[in-house]
Amino acid sequence: MQRIAMIGSGFIARFYADSLQGYRSKDKIVSVYSRKDSSSKKFSEDYNVNHFTTNMEDAISNPEVDIVCIALPNNLHEEAVILCCKHRKAIMITKPLGRNAAEAKRMLQAVEEANVFNGYLEDLVYTPKFIKAEKSIRSGALGRILWSKSRETHPGPHSDWFWDLEQAGGGCILDLGCHCVEIARSYIGKEIKPIEVMCWADTQVKPIDAEDHAIGLVKYENGAIGQFEVSWTFRGGLDLRDEVMGTEGTIWTNNFLRTGFEMFTTGKGGDYIAEKAESNSGWLFPVGDELNELGYNHMFMDMLDSLESGKQPKETFYDGYVVNVVLDAAYKSAKSKLWEPVKLDIWRGREGYTKDSHLVEYDAEHYLIKEEVTHYGEKKFILKNKASGKIIEKIV
Amino acid sequence: MQRIAMIGSGFIARFYADSLQGYRSKDKIVSVYSRKDSSSKKFSEDYNVNHFTTNMEDAISNPEVDIVCIALPNNLHEEAVILCCKHRKAIMITKPLGRNAAEAKRMLQAVEEANVFNGYLEDLVYTPKFIKAEKSIRSGALGRILWSKSRETHPGPHSDWFWDLEQAGGGCILDLGCHCVEIARSYIGKEIKPIEVMCWADTQVKPIDAEDHAIGLVKYENGAIGQFEVSWTFRGGLDLRDEVMGTEGTIWTNNFLRTGFEMFTTGKGGDYIAEKAESNSGWLFPVGDELNELGYNHMFMDMLDSLESGKQPKETFYDGYVVNVVLDAAYKSAKSKLWEPVKLDIWRGREGYTKDSHLVEYDAEHYLIKEEVTHYGEKKFILKNKASGKIIEKIV
Amino acid sequence: MQRIAMIGSGFIARFYADSLQGYRSKDKIVSVYSRKDSSSKKFSEDYNVNHFTTNMEDAISNPEVDIVCIALPNNLHEEAVILCCKHRKAIMITKPLGRNAAEAKRMLQAVEEANVFNGYLEDLVYTPKFIKAEKSIRSGALGRILWSKSRETHPGPHSDWFWDLEQAGGGCILDLGCHCVEIARSYIGKEIKPIEVMCWADTQVKPIDAEDHAIGLVKYENGAIGQFEVSWTFRGGLDLRDEVMGTEGTIWTNNFLRTGFEMFTTGKGGDYIAEKAESNSGWLFPVGDELNELGYNHMFMDMLDSLESGKQPKETFYDGYVVNVVLDAAYKSAKSKLWEPVKLDIWRGREGYTKDSHLVEYDAEHYLIKEEVTHYGEKKFILKNKASGKIIEKIV
Amino acid sequence: MQRIAMIGSGFIARFYADSLQGYRSKDKIVSVYSRKDSSSKKFSEDYNVNHFTTNMEDAISNPEVDIVCIALPNNLHEEAVILCCKHRKAIMITKPLGRNAAEAKRMLQAVEEANVFNGYLEDLVYTPKFIKAEKSIRSGALGRILWSKSRETHPGPHSDWFWDLEQAGGGCILDLGCHCVEIARSYIGKEIKPIEVMCWADTQVKPIDAEDHAIGLVKYENGAIGQFEVSWTFRGGLDLRDEVMGTEGTIWTNNFLRTGFEMFTTGKGGDYIAEKAESNSGWLFPVGDELNELGYNHMFMDMLDSLESGKQPKETFYDGYVVNVVLDAAYKSAKSKLWEPVKLDIWRGREGYTKDSHLVEYDAEHYLIKEEVTHYGEKKFILKNKASGKIIEKIV
Repeated sequence: MQRIAMIGSGFIARFYADSLQGYRSKDKIVSVYSRKDSSSKKFSEDYNVNHFTTNMEDAISNPEVDIVCIALPNNLHEEAVILCCKHRKAIMITKPLGRNAAEAKRMLQAVEEANVFNGYLEDLVYTPKFIKAEKSIRSGALGRILWSKSRETHPGPHSDWFWDLEQAGGGCILDLGCHCVEIARSYIGKEIKPIEVMCWADTQVKPIDAEDHAIGLVKYENGAIGQFEVSWTFRGGLDLRDEVMGTEGTIWTNNFLRTGFEMFTTGKGGDYIAEKAESNSGWLFPVGDELNELGYNHMFMDMLDSLESGKQPKETFYDGYVVNVVLDAAYKSAKSKLWEPVKLDIWRGREGYTKDSHLVEYDAEHYLIKEEVTHYGEKKFILKNKASGKIIEKIV
Repeated sequence: MQRIAMIGSGFIARFYADSLQGYRSKDKIVSVYSRKDSSSKKFSEDYNVNHFTTNMEDAISNPEVDIVCIALPNNLHEEAVILCCKHRKAIMITKPLGRNAAEAKRMLQAVEEANVFNGYLEDLVYTPKFIKAEKSIRSGALGRILWSKSRETHPGPHSDWFWDLEQAGGGCILDLGCHCVEIARSYIGKEIKPIEVMCWADTQVKPIDAEDHAIGLVKYENGAIGQFEVSWTFRGGLDLRDEVMGTEGTIWTNNFLRTGFEMFTTGKGGDYIAEKAESNSGWLFPVGDELNELGYNHMFMDMLDSLESGKQPKETFYDGYVVNVVLDAAYKSAKSKLWEPVKLDIWRGREGYTKDSHLVEYDAEHYLIKEEVTHYGEKKFILKNKASGKIIEKIV
Repeated sequence: MQRIAMIGSGFIARFYADSLQGYRSKDKIVSVYSRKDSSSKKFSEDYNVNHFTTNMEDAISNPEVDIVCIALPNNLHEEAVILCCKHRKAIMITKPLGRNAAEAKRMLQAVEEANVFNGYLEDLVYTPKFIKAEKSIRSGALGRILWSKSRETHPGPHSDWFWDLEQAGGGCILDLGCHCVEIARSYIGKEIKPIEVMCWADTQVKPIDAEDHAIGLVKYENGAIGQFEVSWTFRGGLDLRDEVMGTEGTIWTNNFLRTGFEMFTTGKGGDYIAEKAESNSGWLFPVGDELNELGYNHMFMDMLDSLESGKQPKETFYDGYVVNVVLDAAYKSAKSKLWEPVKLDIWRGREGYTKDSHLVEYDAEHYLIKEEVTHYGEKKFILKNKASGKIIEKIV
Repeated sequence: MQRIAMIGSGFIARFYADSLQGYRSKDKIVSVYSRKDSSSKKFSEDYNVNHFTTNMEDAISNPEVDIVCIALPNNLHEEAVILCCKHRKAIMITKPLGRNAAEAKRMLQAVEEANVFNGYLEDLVYTPKFIKAEKSIRSGALGRILWSKSRETHPGPHSDWFWDLEQAGGGCILDLGCHCVEIARSYIGKEIKPIEVMCWADTQVKPIDAEDHAIGLVKYENGAIGQFEVSWTFRGGLDLRDEVMGTEGTIWTNNFLRTGFEMFTTGKGGDYIAEKAESNSGWLFPVGDELNELGYNHMFMDMLDSLESGKQPKETFYDGYVVNVVLDAAYKSAKSKLWEPVKLDIWRGREGYTKDSHLVEYDAEHYLIKEEVTHYGEKKFILKNKASGKIIEKIV
């Protein structure tokens, strides 16, 4: 049983609280901080929290608190982390870790110096589908991973601060790309080093300074590519789709808009349908259980189980730091229009991985290009002569 | 925190144990009974259970036990229930409750006389999708419910006893139809009385005495229809699809084979993919989290929360009894080829519900049949004259 | 090149005309009849038809006409057919053939006596998906066919006469069930005799005398079951889904609402989306090419190619007659609540087909019930002893 | 009625022939050329062609021929086009037009100087889904187009020459990217100028000199982005998916693998399932009618109707030229790692289009960022002060 301080009381804090007090069914939020008195009070009532405050340090230092859950706007993360370190509290922090790599690195170094538990709340690598897909990939079902794409687009976030470049530190790349980068990194292998990034970004629709649409490619040392597609201008709901391709197969997951739940209504029932749905009539696509489908339950399970057993969770501040470094390169690339290097001052994975070979032996003289059964029922091999390079068809 | 005796150690007992010891993360199986010594021992090792036995009463009467979970073949349910009543233990029992209504009624009366907590483990009305769909229906999003279909088909159960008419009490109607009947009943409204059943059943493929394929219609007092389609001869995996239609909309849920997770593999990874999948290469459709998708987690949450708070769970022995009565009528109909009455000796819902009206007023002289915008952009009403019955088109 | 008289100028006549003058790109409508002068004139302008009339016989007897396409309300079919026979014209007629089997039989006998080409315009056995599925089934991909379901539901037809029991001859069973019966019959095998029908039907929503919702089961001589689900009360568009199950596989086709075309729009474009769509904003599911997806193109190709080559088309008046006989049994069953026999005075298929065996040999002493790889990686056989009937599990 | 010379007799020539002699049902292939005598003879037998030859000029100059259909490897396109110009024959040519922009430009200039009909056989902008989607977009249903993605991946082409860099001129970018570029261009608007390209390409799997996987971004003058994802290393079949996003909506089309046709078979039927399918057992996803779904029918309809009516078809050599110029920039970018300019020597669309505005007025003082109904039922506006740039939330 863990006692939690919730730092923040907005949209994401409420999602977290629903999961924290629901899933393991034994943990309890004992303190809540909000910048606004009315918000912390309202939250304390809704979630039955004894202590509420507008003084962040009071919430964090509260002696009943075992672990602090930071659910604040991006520009307030560092302050909260430093306070947790000061009071030697375990931490879980919402994504992204920092507004940029420099902030993330300082936070990483702070928690490691203070030697406190540090969890990074990247929920989308904890969705049930992701967990099962990752397991299949690790077991070799897709062969060598070549490419992984994560798409996260929706009509824009719910709170004002996201849209403010100073508070948020960026636009949809930072808000949504942080998910995508960690998803691709996890599929490709966290031990493989991301080395360079190409990114296009633009402000196509919204009257803001930050980008509202971006596409990026992250190249890894072994030649694999991670792709992200992020936008705050998508119409149609919350589009969360991941794909991964390997030499032996592919996995497509749809995490939100197409999960086997389809509903048509003329609109007589006016319920909340799903996060970021745009309508409550016509064809609608709810998910059964948002907290579970979005990974919150398995994420907090890992966090609290890890804390209790003295282990590191799957996602730590170090992962948050790597993501921020990759996104910094993306922002730089969007401006320079060049492939920008991923500047990892701290790298704990493998080094010197070379690109995988792409030569499959057919016989002593040939490489195999392709084997197929044709339209007309023939078994056909397409082969390349090792010496001459000549490509031939062989029917057997 | 609840301490559980697991009575049975087979396929379903293991599914239950995974959920019971996983989801609420505070409950514990403290005793396990199996007919075979080796099985109870193996189960006790796998799930870290202190006490294992081949004496059912020892497991049930174990003083550490708060609640007994009965996961036995159908022909052993009554014996186990009687023992629980004798020792005044709370009970959760797998589906179907009895092999027939007479058994179910005796069990219902036993638990009510003994005044013990009684939960009926109908997991498929606890899936996250079902829960959300039911909520939408209750809020009126589909209007008046007209029809509900539940389809449960797969290539046949895993254990020998299912195929034995004496032990199981029936074939796929009893094994799978029990789910379907309760799903339709829940969508239509549990307070509405099922009144008669028409059922076709046949043994089309398997060398057994029981039916391996059946389709049934259950008529409710308000004119709504519940439909079930069940089979042990379906090829392609576990097909669990529900549909419900109302005057204002429809809901389609796919609970297993199409949930937004699609995988192609040439077969290099030989993992267990999903319950009743038929292949581990080609296009596969795993689910993210079987325990959750199949409703086990929310079911046990309701059971144990209800037990702790002194309330009845959503599904009780009474529901199991109603389902058995409906299925008895289905079996009778499959033989008699007639619509057979649902003989509910005990009925706790509404009585005397009449069929809903199907007259929508258009104006003083006409009923509205249909309103539409045509192919060619016209607004058209199809109306029926109240006096003459004449049907006309009116363009406005 | 064929010259066509179109008898009727309504919704379906226009669909037919679009396909007839589009697909083979060499045929021409040369005469059009409508009960209303304005309609026949409008049609003649829209489709560039030289001759238009309100005298049916004039259109049919027009010497330029090679083939007559009857697209009239059901109660006018017989009159038109008789006129075609009188003038020895080839005929294609919309579905259903008659309002009942008696009408259908008279029309069948008339065309056969007159020895004129007779095509039955059952478009849904000509959809590209159906044609491919049927071919797979005939090649054995699904093994022995056990069950076939066809579902056709939508919010109700476009013209007044459909809703009038006298003109239409029935409600959604006749309007939609005629498709479903022929689909199932084609999957199961047209040479297999349908023997009895059980049907539920009700008027649940509309203020009409005919049924607006029905479900029926058609039993074939070999034990296969054809199922239909039809409704004029479905909300959400035109739901056309077929399923077929055999001993070796299954096919699911979605012919309209889910064909790989998904669109979200806030509603700024007000176009016609698809037949019977209910909205033009939110998530919409158009089909690429309605004429092709609904089978019109391949149907008319077969009709006109057959006419030109002196062969019978795939669907003739005889098929229309069989369908009417099955539907008569359905209507009778809906009233009698009994399985009603299919009274085929004329039967040209196989007779005396017995139910298929369901015994698969495992070894000299056992039948095979099931073979599977378990959850836990074991290869398991479930067997039945031929002599004792005892069912056992065998692990190998 | 058109008489066609087919130049080439391989996989694509056969697809073309099936459509040409099928759909309009009045056209005829009257001459066929193949490099191999046996192939031209076989083709002439299969398609009932009177004249077959291994002399290309003989086939083209044949006086019976109205139009020449070039279905040759890329390196032979120019020779064939020059011969057609010499003999003043109308031309339809397979994609891509040239191996590079220089070749394409010479061919474009040749046909325009010779003043012959020139059609570019880009089938994927003629699929029924594409045609309907494009019409919706033109009618404004998606608002201003922001982004369009086309994905074409499969396990690699069927003939040896594709894999040979000299004959093909490139790898999957040229083979598949040519489709994607024209799809995005058509959605965004053909009159909008593509200005620069960023592309990643690699040879990840196959032992070839050309690329087997690539991703590219094409920027248009109005700020819209066209994205292509192409690969010869995808496992799972032929993956053809397009997406397009605008300010008011989105369209997703799946052209091959998920079109509402799902089949499971244990494998007893060994038929050809679909182009580039990788298996004939397990879950399979055939399409109803490949020729139609892949656009061949509507493409040839447009070509031959245009030829007959003296109009230009939708796709001409000019479009092929534009595509080649864009792909040249992609190849250059893949090497230089820079955004490369699209060097259109010939440009017939609009010039000087500026990026669209992204400011939506809320009131005199504010721009509108977002309007939504929250989780908690509030109507919320997120606004930006025009003067101060400050972002606020306003609840009404």
